[in-house]
Amino acid sequence: MTTQQAAAMRPATMNGLNVQGVFATIDAVKSDTGLAKFQFRAKNRWIDGGENRSTIRNFYGAGREDDSRKTSFEFINGEPPVLLGNNEGANPVEFLLHALAGCVTTTFILHATARGIEIDELATEMEGDLDVRGLLGLDETVSPGYEQIRIRLKVRANCSEKELEDLLDYTQQHSPVCNTVCRPVPVKIERAIT
Amino acid sequence: MTTQQAAAMRPATMNGLNVQGVFATIDAVKSDTGLAKFQFRAKNRWIDGGENRSTIRNFYGAGREDDSRKTSFEFINGEPPVLLGNNEGANPVEFLLHALAGCVTTTFILHATARGIEIDELATEMEGDLDVRGLLGLDETVSPGYEQIRIRLKVRANCSEKELEDLLDYTQQHSPVCNTVCRPVPVKIERAIT
Repeated sequence: MTTQQAAAMRPATMNGLNVQGVFATIDAVKSDTGLAKFQFRAKNRWIDGGENRSTIRNFYGAGREDDSRKTSFEFINGEPPVLLGNNEGANPVEFLLHALAGCVTTTFILHATARGIEIDELATEMEGDLDVRGLLGLDETVSPGYEQIRIRLKVRANCSEKELEDLLDYTQQHSPVCNTVCRPVPVKIERAIT
Repeated sequence: MTTQQAAAMRPATMNGLNVQGVFATIDAVKSDTGLAKFQFRAKNRWIDGGENRSTIRNFYGAGREDDSRKTSFEFINGEPPVLLGNNEGANPVEFLLHALAGCVTTTFILHATARGIEIDELATEMEGDLDVRGLLGLDETVSPGYEQIRIRLKVRANCSEKELEDLLDYTQQHSPVCNTVCRPVPVKIERAIT
């Protein structure tokens, strides 16, 4: 059975996703792997102290520059008083938890839909442990980043417990943010020519 | 020279940070390493399709539950049409770039201040390459996460080029989000008891 045949046997929409769209995306990427290449971007500007702001809009993907966003998204990083800020925004390590929660959720919903599993509810609670001796450079044996991140996931779905566990394992292995956190990803910093 | 003596020779505020506060934080953590333990949190709820929302408020750190935030921060993950969404928000991999930009910036400002370096301007442009064959599970040799992230950093400061390069290297090694991305961090997913 081709993915198109699979799609034809499904409702038009499942879990809020266009089912034909899911299978059409899979088929398109299978037939032209160049369409799978994406480049995401953000611009950030320091304001003062622990406050800085990002704007996010354009990206490259599916063979072209995306132009679907008419305005930019804007986000403010801040710090709480105990970390020398004024709660101008959530702080960067908290935004990382938001990114991870969202990516696990979206990956789960995508593959649930591809498998024909309807999701009634999906919610996560995230916890990340961090020792600021790393950030402060007080002990070079302490990693500055998260020591561990835990995701407590609540889900209700129209499938067996076994199917749910399989889907969850698959999600963990295929979520882009989860994979970025779980494996070493090179970050290159270069100076802009001013 | 103790950090307090160093602080006494500095202006009260530098780069928008309370200089006494920076050194007091370093001294406090040096004298009681338990104060360095933080736990950050987020709660996320799936809305529909590629849309989900996080609330972020409380955390544990410096020996107690923080209560400085009177309301929660709320953030919306979405997806662009080419990734089957309606641009309900930035997407999770874009939020990761925002988190990374903010963390590198805040770490840079913190250590610049500790070193007595005044920063006039700091801005970053982020790019991350991602191949969605990983997310879609079409090629298990393709990593679902970012292949590489590049940060183009523009900075103006009252110090020598050598001091700036040292500070930038130190920042890359001590930024919590940069370290979380660059090294493998365990992510544990468990099911909530419902």
